[in-house]
Amino acid sequence: MKERRVGVWFIGALGSIATTVMVGALLLQRGKMAPVGMVTQVQPFRQLNLVPMEALTFGGCDIREGCLEKAGRHLVQESRVVDSASYDELSPLLVSIGRGLKRGTAVNCGEAIQGMAPVHQGKQLSLEEQVEEVRSWLRGFKEEGDLDCVVVVNLASTEPHLPLQDFHGDLESFREQLRADNGHAVRASSLYAYAAVSEGCPYINFTPSNGALVDAVVQLAVEKRVPIMGNDGKTGETLVKSALAPMFACRNLNVLSWVGFNILGNMDGSILEHPDNRQSKIRSKDQALAHILGYSPHSRVQIDYMPSLEDQKTAWDFIHFEGFLGSKMSLQFIWQGYDSLLAAPLVLDLVRFADLALRRGEGGLMTHLASYFKTPLGVDEHGLYRQYESLVAYARNVVSEAGSLKKG
Amino acid sequence: MKERRVGVWFIGALGSIATTVMVGALLLQRGKMAPVGMVTQVQPFRQLNLVPMEALTFGGCDIREGCLEKAGRHLVQESRVVDSASYDELSPLLVSIGRGLKRGTAVNCGEAIQGMAPVHQGKQLSLEEQVEEVRSWLRGFKEEGDLDCVVVVNLASTEPHLPLQDFHGDLESFREQLRADNGHAVRASSLYAYAAVSEGCPYINFTPSNGALVDAVVQLAVEKRVPIMGNDGKTGETLVKSALAPMFACRNLNVLSWVGFNILGNMDGSILEHPDNRQSKIRSKDQALAHILGYSPHSRVQIDYMPSLEDQKTAWDFIHFEGFLGSKMSLQFIWQGYDSLLAAPLVLDLVRFADLALRRGEGGLMTHLASYFKTPLGVDEHGLYRQYESLVAYARNVVSEAGSLKKG
Amino acid sequence: MKERRVGVWFIGALGSIATTVMVGALLLQRGKMAPVGMVTQVQPFRQLNLVPMEALTFGGCDIREGCLEKAGRHLVQESRVVDSASYDELSPLLVSIGRGLKRGTAVNCGEAIQGMAPVHQGKQLSLEEQVEEVRSWLRGFKEEGDLDCVVVVNLASTEPHLPLQDFHGDLESFREQLRADNGHAVRASSLYAYAAVSEGCPYINFTPSNGALVDAVVQLAVEKRVPIMGNDGKTGETLVKSALAPMFACRNLNVLSWVGFNILGNMDGSILEHPDNRQSKIRSKDQALAHILGYSPHSRVQIDYMPSLEDQKTAWDFIHFEGFLGSKMSLQFIWQGYDSLLAAPLVLDLVRFADLALRRGEGGLMTHLASYFKTPLGVDEHGLYRQYESLVAYARNVVSEAGSLKKG
Amino acid sequence: MKERRVGVWFIGALGSIATTVMVGALLLQRGKMAPVGMVTQVQPFRQLNLVPMEALTFGGCDIREGCLEKAGRHLVQESRVVDSASYDELSPLLVSIGRGLKRGTAVNCGEAIQGMAPVHQGKQLSLEEQVEEVRSWLRGFKEEGDLDCVVVVNLASTEPHLPLQDFHGDLESFREQLRADNGHAVRASSLYAYAAVSEGCPYINFTPSNGALVDAVVQLAVEKRVPIMGNDGKTGETLVKSALAPMFACRNLNVLSWVGFNILGNMDGSILEHPDNRQSKIRSKDQALAHILGYSPHSRVQIDYMPSLEDQKTAWDFIHFEGFLGSKMSLQFIWQGYDSLLAAPLVLDLVRFADLALRRGEGGLMTHLASYFKTPLGVDEHGLYRQYESLVAYARNVVSEAGSLKKG
Repeated sequence: MKERRVGVWFIGALGSIATTVMVGALLLQRGKMAPVGMVTQVQPFRQLNLVPMEALTFGGCDIREGCLEKAGRHLVQESRVVDSASYDELSPLLVSIGRGLKRGTAVNCGEAIQGMAPVHQGKQLSLEEQVEEVRSWLRGFKEEGDLDCVVVVNLASTEPHLPLQDFHGDLESFREQLRADNGHAVRASSLYAYAAVSEGCPYINFTPSNGALVDAVVQLAVEKRVPIMGNDGKTGETLVKSALAPMFACRNLNVLSWVGFNILGNMDGSILEHPDNRQSKIRSKDQALAHILGYSPHSRVQIDYMPSLEDQKTAWDFIHFEGFLGSKMSLQFIWQGYDSLLAAPLVLDLVRFADLALRRGEGGLMTHLASYFKTPLGVDEHGLYRQYESLVAYARNVVSEAGSLKKG
Repeated sequence: MKERRVGVWFIGALGSIATTVMVGALLLQRGKMAPVGMVTQVQPFRQLNLVPMEALTFGGCDIREGCLEKAGRHLVQESRVVDSASYDELSPLLVSIGRGLKRGTAVNCGEAIQGMAPVHQGKQLSLEEQVEEVRSWLRGFKEEGDLDCVVVVNLASTEPHLPLQDFHGDLESFREQLRADNGHAVRASSLYAYAAVSEGCPYINFTPSNGALVDAVVQLAVEKRVPIMGNDGKTGETLVKSALAPMFACRNLNVLSWVGFNILGNMDGSILEHPDNRQSKIRSKDQALAHILGYSPHSRVQIDYMPSLEDQKTAWDFIHFEGFLGSKMSLQFIWQGYDSLLAAPLVLDLVRFADLALRRGEGGLMTHLASYFKTPLGVDEHGLYRQYESLVAYARNVVSEAGSLKKG
Repeated sequence: MKERRVGVWFIGALGSIATTVMVGALLLQRGKMAPVGMVTQVQPFRQLNLVPMEALTFGGCDIREGCLEKAGRHLVQESRVVDSASYDELSPLLVSIGRGLKRGTAVNCGEAIQGMAPVHQGKQLSLEEQVEEVRSWLRGFKEEGDLDCVVVVNLASTEPHLPLQDFHGDLESFREQLRADNGHAVRASSLYAYAAVSEGCPYINFTPSNGALVDAVVQLAVEKRVPIMGNDGKTGETLVKSALAPMFACRNLNVLSWVGFNILGNMDGSILEHPDNRQSKIRSKDQALAHILGYSPHSRVQIDYMPSLEDQKTAWDFIHFEGFLGSKMSLQFIWQGYDSLLAAPLVLDLVRFADLALRRGEGGLMTHLASYFKTPLGVDEHGLYRQYESLVAYARNVVSEAGSLKKG
Repeated sequence: MKERRVGVWFIGALGSIATTVMVGALLLQRGKMAPVGMVTQVQPFRQLNLVPMEALTFGGCDIREGCLEKAGRHLVQESRVVDSASYDELSPLLVSIGRGLKRGTAVNCGEAIQGMAPVHQGKQLSLEEQVEEVRSWLRGFKEEGDLDCVVVVNLASTEPHLPLQDFHGDLESFREQLRADNGHAVRASSLYAYAAVSEGCPYINFTPSNGALVDAVVQLAVEKRVPIMGNDGKTGETLVKSALAPMFACRNLNVLSWVGFNILGNMDGSILEHPDNRQSKIRSKDQALAHILGYSPHSRVQIDYMPSLEDQKTAWDFIHFEGFLGSKMSLQFIWQGYDSLLAAPLVLDLVRFADLALRRGEGGLMTHLASYFKTPLGVDEHGLYRQYESLVAYARNVVSEAGSLKKG
């Protein structure tokens, strides 16, 4: 029997996270690295018959011009986790992946993002033509690679927050907007998600862009039994927050204020300098706390661009809380991590879970993946451990079903 | 029907925690404070028919001479949570409780603790006589107060670590040592615990002293159906640790090192300066990490006495971990809280749970209270949330049984 | 010979700093507190024949209605440095000072500040009439108290940054604007400073408001030999910054980025929430670094309002620097202090130095007081220690002149 | 005229700091790096006619066996400041230096250090023979390299604290001990320092080992006009401390407690785990504070070995201080730097200053170099800025003398 082969198709393929995923996966495929940070590599998830790392193939698009091999080398020199010699071995593979990358769209993405794309030449495609173009890219990627499944992962820069309109909530109305070629109403992220799901490709929105998985797209995913999930990979400060906030609830300690200051130096930080895009990031962070605590303390999340940090992300959180007899106490934490290296193993996990869900015919939101996201769609639980327990429960259920099938 | 009345009897009644519990409880009884920090005041625990705060009465013993009313006033001026006027109202009650306090024993407790007690005068009691004396105190306290139950709470200073011998593990052998009046073998904490359980009083070991709930005492508790639990109230750094450590496991991030530095200024800190007593504190902190992670990273916990901090406790923890592709990242946290104000509401919770367990005939270790302890006896789970879930499960079970009874 | 008596007249007399100065001074006058935090109480400054603390009298104005005695009591309960009994003793004095306070002006101060003032009734005064009114207040205060000198201290909330126009730089043109009653051109801070100096009263601008000591006012001060100084008391984060930044210069370490996040909960914080006023605060903080280092690293200062902190101010600074062989390292600091308690002793020092300068006929900017200010007018040196050395040198010079005089 | 050539001879040549100095100097000689961190590269020190970097040659000894080239490569891979390709270019030079290294002595250095040395074979030399051996090494190094001056720099692991005896304070008595071959009385560090000064070589004690520059050796240096200086390079936490502590004095703020916790992962950390050696480090840190503040607050410095940090050093300091009206506030700092990269540029500076002093005939302690040391011998000033000012003053004086000479 032919082994299953899975393609990973990145929106934002030249960015730090996508590059890190590819470099990391190639190294893992060669046994050069231990899969630290990948949850799918530990129990009970190893029993899940997930697609092996060796079976993954990579492709994608980006709005920028650029050389994937050079982007990877730059990244690797910066974070210094891979030495030059090891990188040289991967070099031809990355050149080859890089050649296959498509030029993406930034339609309606706001100044900050559009400023990254080179000036367009030639005729402008209609929205429907753009959808069709993305679908053809995905079909081509699948055929060329002889792939059983292509998982689309959105790693593009954060779009400005999209004020949702009625048509975003209804598949038919959404399609009408596409047909009407209403360029002001539809974001690039919506186009990609719609195209991916239409093509039967599982879709992961690792960004905060709320345009990607609008209700219309979720309806389509349910209808076509395509698994999808988002929004916004939970990599750093919010991960810690979702681990710590339940502690206050478990002790009936009253959180008075929770403020967080983030500094980061990569392109994500640079884009977030733009006020519109910053707002998008901030929105997705405020909800977790209220959901976990059951009330909304004074809360603020600031993000600042600090170029010298490069891919390193530093966050300082100050939590002020009330204890017994009205006393005031505090907890502070400082998180220092590499943004892309925190994100990359989550992306690999999500791809493997998405492929499993597709095989199992689970269409729509993969709510069992809530622990991976800052704003898990369709899920009210924001506490990390309960989210994780639900992933474990899902896995146990899959294993037990598989056991029943074999026995049966 | 007469209302249930419960006595709380402190070993170390003049210390900061006991004093805070009493002042706090008196204020809560008068509706002067909200019960922030008490878990028994939130759902689902409010359904449990626990003894009301108003029904609690206080007593105890201490090895030091001293005036409870003055100790309380000093404490309150320091932490400044209660103003002088409010304290003045409680003053006569504290004077009255203070008059009833007994002079405790520090037998075999090491230099640091014995140095706190005034020089003994008069004849020395044998071990059995000391046990009998404690029992008579408890009986007297119960009778005078017309109490249905007396819960004994050990809040005495941390004893040096006790190297366990065979007789500690067997009730009969332990009793032989008492009869032989072998002063070198038996610690004060063991005497108290043995006396309390013998007298049918639930016993809480809020300290790290491992002499209190030795196996011989646990056997006695099972036999006599007396609920007991320990060791070492989880109030600060370890609380945060038990909330954060599972995060690394949930992300398959590899903790390389976890070091913690604690500074505190109260008597607890002063006693812990003594190398023997420090060791006792450090032991009880190392286990949590290994249990939660499944491996033992480099770990160190330092405690330093810093008089100017008084009751305020500050901890800095540095956690070094390995992520994807061998990258090294870090998380630091700084915890600043009032030791006694963190501990006091837990003590009140534990008393109420202990009284409930006694009524329900649950003898031996109350493992459902694991979330309250740094070294929960009889429990391997050290992650805060799983411990808490088991407390919730216990409560739901009690409520559901009560429901069945009523229906029946 | 009659003893010298000095009045201190606050703009913003109901605010936290003014209230703390008054409560503190009254306690010091009664020998109830040690003068910790006052530089004038240590050598070589004790040799300076400064006005004794006992000779200080207090008055002022505020745009808000309010009771000084109540404001002080609230403050004291919050920061808990003075107990109720000690405060009760001061109470009648504060009531009496409070009765003498005038209703100030907030002309042209922006929405945030004007929102604090009650709605005006009665006829509106012209600018010249307002100046005359302030002067008459100062005259009245001086006569009633039989004072030799009145020092005016601006402690009002930070005004929005004032874009300077030509007339601000020239005394005659400035006077023309007053005569023309050009309400849009002149800020409240300018009016007060102009009135004070016209009246021969030394003036201290402890706020960042750049409208106060415009060049026109400086010219007037030189002309009338009235000592003045500002801007913006250096109390917290900037104090630490001015102590630390020279370290990097002394080691030829290259500061790449210096970002600071401030959270505070008092009215200062609340006013700074307003974007206009925040800008004013941020401007005054950016200069120090460039002056000390000789180059401008990436730098950012954020200020956030966090009500639960009340008067406590917390700052986190992250300094990223380059060392040998291009290595990147970091220094972080966390400053936790009480805003008003840090400011108050500086205000008392400044008053005493200003009175001395007046007696000595030193008109214009008191550049020797640079160490007290974030933006010391007329001074390029921002390093704390060099600023302090120049204060020491000034004091030694005064002492030596006095010695010569006596000998002579 | 022949250009001056200076040799640098390391005690502990295979250690991290020596290796970093050599790799760094070779890169600087080739113009591959900017001299960030070297004070001698900025004004006014550039006017001093110091020996150019290109004129430095390296040699030394170590008690360990090992390959310098491999040690350097390991270091470079760890701290990642030099890429493999650049290192490869230096490789032959390091191999050549490595071949010339001598096997050093660890006489009387305590278990921790002696455990690093391989078991001795062959006959044991007497103390005088050991001195003669070191002198012959230095002579040989000087002759082979045709050097005008050899500066000896002690970078060996910290010895246990040496309780000083009478003979350490008197040159003649010290010589008697050598003659008597009293192995228990004389440390390796004393032998090296004595040998270096006897040979006319300037000597820098960059370690805390108090055996190196005992009074007897200082007398010899004065007598022979050889410049020497120590102890203990001020690289991290103490650097920050000496910059920050004067701030509290400049504000009359009362430091209550200053505690510091250091974690580091290199061999220095591993040696400091041994209680004897730890004590030596701690002693040298406590003095600075008392000297700067004029009183001794509660103070504690802890050092912990944390292998995963490798050459990275992290320190957390908590400073508790009293402000106005008895208020308590705090300042914390976290320092994260690479130990060797912080030390290396200081070593290069010190070598250049020492060579200058030798040329100028300045024998004995170079007190103008106080800013480089945690325990500057012969200097009471511990504040960083005053120390630095005295270095600037020295430089200005040298420049002005040189100017006078030229003119004359």
